[in-house]
Amino acid sequence: MTEKSPERLVFFTDAVVAIALTLLVLPLTEIVPELVAAHGEPIEAITRNQPKIWSFLLSFAVIGRQWFGHHRLFEHVRAYTQTLMLTNMVWLLSVIVMPFATQLVGGFGTDEFTCLLYIGTIVVNSGCISLMTLAVRANPKLLKEGERLSGRWMYNTLGTTISMLAAFVLVLLVPAVNYYSLLLLLVPPVVARLVHPEPAKPTQLSE
Amino acid sequence: MTEKSPERLVFFTDAVVAIALTLLVLPLTEIVPELVAAHGEPIEAITRNQPKIWSFLLSFAVIGRQWFGHHRLFEHVRAYTQTLMLTNMVWLLSVIVMPFATQLVGGFGTDEFTCLLYIGTIVVNSGCISLMTLAVRANPKLLKEGERLSGRWMYNTLGTTISMLAAFVLVLLVPAVNYYSLLLLLVPPVVARLVHPEPAKPTQLSE
Amino acid sequence: MTEKSPERLVFFTDAVVAIALTLLVLPLTEIVPELVAAHGEPIEAITRNQPKIWSFLLSFAVIGRQWFGHHRLFEHVRAYTQTLMLTNMVWLLSVIVMPFATQLVGGFGTDEFTCLLYIGTIVVNSGCISLMTLAVRANPKLLKEGERLSGRWMYNTLGTTISMLAAFVLVLLVPAVNYYSLLLLLVPPVVARLVHPEPAKPTQLSE
Amino acid sequence: MTEKSPERLVFFTDAVVAIALTLLVLPLTEIVPELVAAHGEPIEAITRNQPKIWSFLLSFAVIGRQWFGHHRLFEHVRAYTQTLMLTNMVWLLSVIVMPFATQLVGGFGTDEFTCLLYIGTIVVNSGCISLMTLAVRANPKLLKEGERLSGRWMYNTLGTTISMLAAFVLVLLVPAVNYYSLLLLLVPPVVARLVHPEPAKPTQLSE
Repeated sequence: MTEKSPERLVFFTDAVVAIALTLLVLPLTEIVPELVAAHGEPIEAITRNQPKIWSFLLSFAVIGRQWFGHHRLFEHVRAYTQTLMLTNMVWLLSVIVMPFATQLVGGFGTDEFTCLLYIGTIVVNSGCISLMTLAVRANPKLLKEGERLSGRWMYNTLGTTISMLAAFVLVLLVPAVNYYSLLLLLVPPVVARLVHPEPAKPTQLSE
Repeated sequence: MTEKSPERLVFFTDAVVAIALTLLVLPLTEIVPELVAAHGEPIEAITRNQPKIWSFLLSFAVIGRQWFGHHRLFEHVRAYTQTLMLTNMVWLLSVIVMPFATQLVGGFGTDEFTCLLYIGTIVVNSGCISLMTLAVRANPKLLKEGERLSGRWMYNTLGTTISMLAAFVLVLLVPAVNYYSLLLLLVPPVVARLVHPEPAKPTQLSE
Repeated sequence: MTEKSPERLVFFTDAVVAIALTLLVLPLTEIVPELVAAHGEPIEAITRNQPKIWSFLLSFAVIGRQWFGHHRLFEHVRAYTQTLMLTNMVWLLSVIVMPFATQLVGGFGTDEFTCLLYIGTIVVNSGCISLMTLAVRANPKLLKEGERLSGRWMYNTLGTTISMLAAFVLVLLVPAVNYYSLLLLLVPPVVARLVHPEPAKPTQLSE
Repeated sequence: MTEKSPERLVFFTDAVVAIALTLLVLPLTEIVPELVAAHGEPIEAITRNQPKIWSFLLSFAVIGRQWFGHHRLFEHVRAYTQTLMLTNMVWLLSVIVMPFATQLVGGFGTDEFTCLLYIGTIVVNSGCISLMTLAVRANPKLLKEGERLSGRWMYNTLGTTISMLAAFVLVLLVPAVNYYSLLLLLVPPVVARLVHPEPAKPTQLSE
């Protein structure tokens, strides 16, 4: 295996995420010409488009968190393999479809299928981060010198994927919980802290 | 606290701002197909769309200044905390919604609600810069070696936020001033210079 | 010839590719307002737009692979000439038109002209990579110290272009194969390995 | 004057240019839904939209050349002043409006006003590069150590601006020449070579 610096990969990833994040605003900008054509009041851009605005804010938070998770992992990575590269591409795919999933949420709200598609996209995203984390843990040469991914880190990362899978199943069983099921994201850090109470090491995320 | 280089955070921020800045042109490009469909004269793209063009230029200047303020601060930052990261995300959110706020201005002009929403977005943006500046001042380890944020700097930064809050209140009281209230931005540098007349130091912005 | 670092060229290239890749989602986002206007079911966003979704996924894979090919080459390049710069601009052009070609595929599916345009775009892209590879091979000063492009590498790169030309001709002769002709991409690596069975060197791509 | 590395400024500039360049494809993508709605033939996307396609290619070449000119200058710059920063923002503005100017060209072709607006945008862009070049020449501290901008360089840069001004005036006098007036761009390099026949130095552009 040749050692390849992930710098350009990370850069490319950041650019894609930045664009996907910014494209989230496009459905909001589409509100205005319609409102002008209908001789509406400007305040209706907000009051009559709350699902669009909430879905925009939700997806902003979701993509922001996804980027943060990617950032946190790659801060410690100094080389990449073809597996990491390909998993990263699938991760990017799950980010790029977010503006589409967000549009569906803005248009159809708490509809079950829409909700499952949205959470399913997050499951794929989180699953890719987990796969990349496992790949890095299995191959210490990929980590920067003297670093390791702590047990609490692994709990946190895999726990996030499991909690999102749980959210998906929960919506399947009880559609009424819809996007509130994403609150399950708050569980893994608590569990990780209980199981691994040791203080944060250089290689751990300070929480 | 582990020390984290803000390089990737700054890069990601720059990419998002660059996209938001460039998306401002989209409402202008939408003018053309409509004009062609209406068998209009090309010059009408300019003459009959002045609110769109002014709002485009205004927002270009606003986002340009916001980016410059961010740049000026992070030039001196060598590490970041979770607080800085989260405040930066809110700052980004206030940039990303600018194309939406700009569309409203282009469509509804000096309408009071539109004007308040626009200036309110700028208040949030400026408030985040102030918060980040205070966080950096409170934690000298975040600054590059041997640097400090001068008194004039603090006056300038906090003064900008206060002047934008004043602009917001002014529009509430006297809607007729609308976007001219943004001229209050010119006040803080003058005050800062009067209060802190010392010559610029390496850690100060050369004005 | 002055020696110019390709860093900014590569950065600019990455940004353009990242945007083209992300713009692929725009036709998908356009589905939603139409569906809402037609009072359709959310699931129809998927079930009734399969050509759009397949063309999105296909082009995501195509652009991803193109970026990877570019990345792989420029990892070894330490300087660039005007020829390399200009060929890179044509390469970028062939990436930028992908969202347009993808829209055509999403709208007209396996239509012969659409298919030829799509594959033709890929031929131009691959041809530019081949030209750049030949330019770098002809001028060893452009490569990082102690590196060379191996024989297997050359087989792989030129073979990809030839296989895409073959795909183009194949669709001309037998339109029914349409996008399946892209599977010819799988041939060159196998041939390259048969002809150059030596193990991967530092300058070779680990496959 | 504090010395500020232009790295982040250049990065931000590149990102904006990359986005403006890629947004040029949007008018082409809009062709497809209309064509599908009108039950047209796929080939009509090309044959019936030639003005859109030519304006796309022209603007791709124009923005590509503008980026190259910026790149060529900033390769030698190691610090920036507020003047340089502000001129760069105006330069960016002239790039960002290109998708709008391009739409007009695609919609109204060789109409005189459209042509003047298009070339006027290029004049502003080129004028900013000239201003930045003069600012750098006037302040050698801004250049990398041991470098200077050669006489041929100055001829080339200022000559480009003059040739674009001449193109603008030419279209005013003889509208029929329209975009062919851009061919005046070919003159400055020839003149520069005649006046400054010395071989290229490290600080000169190899032509």
